[in-house]
Amino acid sequence: MPEFRKDPLTGSWVIIAPERAQRPIDANHRTAQVEEFAEWSEECPFCSGNELMTPPEVLAYRSPGTGSNQRGWTLRVVRNKYPALSPDLELNTVTGNDLHRSMVGFGYHEVIIETPSHSRDFSFMALDEIEDVLWAWRDRLLSIRADKRIKYALVFKNYGHRAGASLVHPHSQIIATPMVPKRIEEEVQNMRNYYGEKGACLLCAMLNTEKSEKKRIVEQNQSFTAYCPYASMSAYQIMIVPNWHSSEFIELNPVQIKDLSKILWSVFRRLHSAVGGLVPYNLWLHNSPWWQEYDTSFFHWHIDLVPRLSELAGFELGSGLFINHTLPEEAAKTLASINIE
Amino acid sequence: MPEFRKDPLTGSWVIIAPERAQRPIDANHRTAQVEEFAEWSEECPFCSGNELMTPPEVLAYRSPGTGSNQRGWTLRVVRNKYPALSPDLELNTVTGNDLHRSMVGFGYHEVIIETPSHSRDFSFMALDEIEDVLWAWRDRLLSIRADKRIKYALVFKNYGHRAGASLVHPHSQIIATPMVPKRIEEEVQNMRNYYGEKGACLLCAMLNTEKSEKKRIVEQNQSFTAYCPYASMSAYQIMIVPNWHSSEFIELNPVQIKDLSKILWSVFRRLHSAVGGLVPYNLWLHNSPWWQEYDTSFFHWHIDLVPRLSELAGFELGSGLFINHTLPEEAAKTLASINIE
Repeated sequence: MPEFRKDPLTGSWVIIAPERAQRPIDANHRTAQVEEFAEWSEECPFCSGNELMTPPEVLAYRSPGTGSNQRGWTLRVVRNKYPALSPDLELNTVTGNDLHRSMVGFGYHEVIIETPSHSRDFSFMALDEIEDVLWAWRDRLLSIRADKRIKYALVFKNYGHRAGASLVHPHSQIIATPMVPKRIEEEVQNMRNYYGEKGACLLCAMLNTEKSEKKRIVEQNQSFTAYCPYASMSAYQIMIVPNWHSSEFIELNPVQIKDLSKILWSVFRRLHSAVGGLVPYNLWLHNSPWWQEYDTSFFHWHIDLVPRLSELAGFELGSGLFINHTLPEEAAKTLASINIE
Repeated sequence: MPEFRKDPLTGSWVIIAPERAQRPIDANHRTAQVEEFAEWSEECPFCSGNELMTPPEVLAYRSPGTGSNQRGWTLRVVRNKYPALSPDLELNTVTGNDLHRSMVGFGYHEVIIETPSHSRDFSFMALDEIEDVLWAWRDRLLSIRADKRIKYALVFKNYGHRAGASLVHPHSQIIATPMVPKRIEEEVQNMRNYYGEKGACLLCAMLNTEKSEKKRIVEQNQSFTAYCPYASMSAYQIMIVPNWHSSEFIELNPVQIKDLSKILWSVFRRLHSAVGGLVPYNLWLHNSPWWQEYDTSFFHWHIDLVPRLSELAGFELGSGLFINHTLPEEAAKTLASINIE
């Protein structure tokens, strides 16, 4: 029986309709999830030895004695060669009129090349490799935050063609903007309103409910909880939330980074195993905005992992209402039951 | 040079970044746009002769003397066999608490089987076939509107796998809900605010600007204008707007329906020809909400045609900011220059 559920974070309704999972799909419409499993690819700009195929590195974790933009790294961050935004432009104020408002495309667009290995997803990395990715996110966020013109930075990761990844090689990205994007603005408003009404954090309250109901928990450790949100927008959506109230990812300490890398690794193991095969996904970090003028300590950062098991179609894009074919309670049960040893 | 542009209808910013069109795509990630071109398919539930593979028809345009759910039709409307929502459920009020709000999945989910032919898109249909599709949309909207529990009905169409179509056979759909979906709510608010401030319709004002600037017009006829919106969310996005102020699609008269079918036919011809090949797309009709208690005469209905030439990825889903690789002015110029005779 289909059901509407409302996500208190975004204020959006979703439709949970398990019946729709049964519908037939034309044979020629089933996407083969073709992925490469090479350790190295000659043409790949992110592979070791191809450093000159990317813009110069802005950060690298590398062996002592190796020079910039050469071999010897375990992680590199470069500007995106085909950037959506550029820090070299001069930020102007909004121009145009009511109907045609525009602004120069000032901002940052960076790529975190997570490993020299051509085709290793989080679930196949060593824990210290994932830790390094998290340290790199933190290092770049710290650095970009120093530019006071930037109000928001979204860290995100696309895996698999269906999730919009144009290159196989494991990478995440950061796009930083001089305004707070709409979806973040919605979460900020909902968390702010809840704080104003109840004097408490909305996501802390959601987390407490999940912990007491125990219906949607995927995994927990000392620092983090992974659960399938009550109003998941897609099948097997997983949210990873710090157990303590924190509005800034950059406040993480080494122990917490270790705990986050552990839960990420095992959540991905669970996901790929539960669905059977490598699942295309989007992942993003919702961190606090960087407004100077407003307090945002009511914000609680979190990571969303959204598998792309069905295409977003006209209804979703035209209405903003998502249809999810899998009950979050069932997804969580399946994910939690996977043996990841 | 990348640029932010703001869409006054949705209130969302988009990033126009033509540079990103140059980026390399892994060879195994290029989706072959495999489509069938058969006139008939034995397995297709929407093909003539397979009427019993669908739920019973709720509307059909058929030759005199042919019976329901048999051959002899040119267009059929049936309930979706795998519905996102169902009209057989009893609509209850919202239940749950602040954090877990839910509502029974009451609503309508219907499929308009646009033609008996297995693989003919709008651009390959005869004009009177497209007219029939528009009459069917109107007939079903009229009928669904009679159910006072329904506040909104979205007509939409998915074409091609990448746009979320699970079946090749040409069809559109209607999903009708007991609440107004978020994206419509945003447009309603922006049109209401503009009307409140200026005493005029926002979309009428946008249309006038397009007609005087002449930079983004694709095609016009007596009743409709097709143009690429200033803040297009995707490459080659096209909006089709009635030249006169109208909040309800169902107010269309036969001459206007003819004009709409003509512009739809030629816009699709232009699109497929401009991009080269059959373009996967989503199309939706943004009609006025059906609130009894509020006046919505400020609303101006329109059709959005959104080609799916690149995948929506983590940045778009995580931020709500879309990245478009093609300047709307260039898209419009290319589309307008196509010879469609």
